[in-house]
Amino acid sequence: MKSNRLGNSTIVFKNKPRIESYYSMVGQKEAKGPFKKYFDYILNDDLCGKKSFELAEREILERTIIGAIDKGHVDFNEIDFIIGGDLLNQIISSSFSARHFEKPFIGLYGACSTMSESLAIGAALIDGGYANKTICATVSHFSTAERQYRTPLELGNQRPPVSQWTVTGAGATILSNSAKGNYVSMATFGKVTDYGVTDANNMGAAMAPAASETLVEHFLDTKRRPEDYDLIVTGDLGKLGSEIFRDLMEHRGYKLGGNYSDCGQMIFSRDQRTFQGGSGAGCSASILNSYILKQMDAGKFNRVLFMATGALLSTLSTQQGETIPCIAHAVVIEREQEKSTEKVNNTQKKPKIKRSSN
Amino acid sequence: MKSNRLGNSTIVFKNKPRIESYYSMVGQKEAKGPFKKYFDYILNDDLCGKKSFELAEREILERTIIGAIDKGHVDFNEIDFIIGGDLLNQIISSSFSARHFEKPFIGLYGACSTMSESLAIGAALIDGGYANKTICATVSHFSTAERQYRTPLELGNQRPPVSQWTVTGAGATILSNSAKGNYVSMATFGKVTDYGVTDANNMGAAMAPAASETLVEHFLDTKRRPEDYDLIVTGDLGKLGSEIFRDLMEHRGYKLGGNYSDCGQMIFSRDQRTFQGGSGAGCSASILNSYILKQMDAGKFNRVLFMATGALLSTLSTQQGETIPCIAHAVVIEREQEKSTEKVNNTQKKPKIKRSSN
Repeated sequence: MKSNRLGNSTIVFKNKPRIESYYSMVGQKEAKGPFKKYFDYILNDDLCGKKSFELAEREILERTIIGAIDKGHVDFNEIDFIIGGDLLNQIISSSFSARHFEKPFIGLYGACSTMSESLAIGAALIDGGYANKTICATVSHFSTAERQYRTPLELGNQRPPVSQWTVTGAGATILSNSAKGNYVSMATFGKVTDYGVTDANNMGAAMAPAASETLVEHFLDTKRRPEDYDLIVTGDLGKLGSEIFRDLMEHRGYKLGGNYSDCGQMIFSRDQRTFQGGSGAGCSASILNSYILKQMDAGKFNRVLFMATGALLSTLSTQQGETIPCIAHAVVIEREQEKSTEKVNNTQKKPKIKRSSN
Repeated sequence: MKSNRLGNSTIVFKNKPRIESYYSMVGQKEAKGPFKKYFDYILNDDLCGKKSFELAEREILERTIIGAIDKGHVDFNEIDFIIGGDLLNQIISSSFSARHFEKPFIGLYGACSTMSESLAIGAALIDGGYANKTICATVSHFSTAERQYRTPLELGNQRPPVSQWTVTGAGATILSNSAKGNYVSMATFGKVTDYGVTDANNMGAAMAPAASETLVEHFLDTKRRPEDYDLIVTGDLGKLGSEIFRDLMEHRGYKLGGNYSDCGQMIFSRDQRTFQGGSGAGCSASILNSYILKQMDAGKFNRVLFMATGALLSTLSTQQGETIPCIAHAVVIEREQEKSTEKVNNTQKKPKIKRSSN
């Protein structure tokens, strides 16, 4: 049997699953950050006119999926799978949304790593000939996450300085087996990693070790180095988490340079007082499906490693005094080159990565 | 690109992902049902010596995974992925267990449909050459499910007559790309289906429509009929749900005969007073990985359609007055024939299916 494996944790997509369309939607606060012009749609109202934040979160996901279909002029009949999940218990935003689309649904749980997990599964299904087109999508909402994981907003609790702000937003990517376009070239699946952090307000510190495990594994599997990427971007480590991640990588012999950034650190500007930056499944999903993929379309990035990171705690595990296991899944997205000059050591001029002043 | 698709929802595994090993573990109550002799391990204590039922659930899953590895003499180094999920918020049983195995982990959420969802994803990864061996596993525990989804046991609430009893148990299947053994030949992914049932105590009625959607889709995609299977088995519709399912199938033109059964209906005997029977991700997982696969090994079944069913509600969705969306994923498991005589219309003598008197 042919092998599409590379090393221990990486799988390779030889048939180039293409990014046929992508779409992002965020709330007002996210639109006040530095990426406003890249998002496809900005909500006027975080409640979307609904009576609960949970209903709003679902509405955001549904509209984002429809947005991706519309924007790419994708024939809905050609969609084979919807693949996704979210942060809410029993991923109700995704499951309840999937009702309306009447397509085979593959529910995932990877917390804030869902965007890359869904892209990895979706790309494998297309690459293997099991699907022609898949929608990969996820969402998060500040107000639903706060009341589920921490405290209801009505209590007005003070936020600790290591905390992050769950992004209200969603992203959807449509992958297809078409012949043209940027594509997912490989995926490195993460291991559940737990360095013993117990503070549910300090997700960045908990997730950084998982991110470094996956990235080191990716480099070992592929024999690549950080400089082989125009952009290496983690999901939502935030400011503190990103620094820990950089340190951990340096200890493992990989010094990350100016081509590394973190969606959580990028999405809000310093004056927005979100402390360590953004978090939530919708954080990396909305940055990927706006700024990153648009910059790839524009030729600013040729090869991006997108690694969403997830903290796999529950309120119950925290109440029972457990530590926080985390995971990070990486996908490599490559720009379709005009001439087929795929060199592992990509020496093209690197653009400066836009980042917030956080 | 080659297509491994059949119709709208079915994917075909041409490389025959093999069932290399399987293992099941259940609690005392489950062992008092008619399948005692088929389970690999029976727990003396539902708490497994732990201080909480959640810790016990995790322990059961870990021991079941190790059991499958040991029983099949599988080299742990050859395992590429652990694929699974469970019923607890943020699938903590699976995520926390995965810490100890240090293997790439693909977290799923499909409620009680997890066993077939994980087999479908695992089989696709092996068939496509992305993995050599995967572990597909899930677990449930009566006491954790009761307190999460319904009421803490300490309240001593009366159970309504349409209720089911969450199985304390787990099942694990190891799929591989080896040359011999029974194999997964296809998978039909389900759509999220919601007929408007709101009673969180009546899961069978909520799930039956999802099961019928998937099975009808499977028959349309494959041009097969019920009589092409030695066994068609649903996950945990229970007694009432199974009857509704039979009716729905008959309305769609497919009369299910004596070759249809339901794991929820099978696992407990009538005198165990579980009303509609068993439920939980561990219900179908433990019946599949004991009775069904052992009967296939023994040559009693040649072709089985295993369709685990999941109710995708959360306590919050119920509190907000939502209906219960459900899903069912089906996988076809075939017995390796001595001579390659794979006929679509399997006319071999059908064995009588063992079932409880429920």
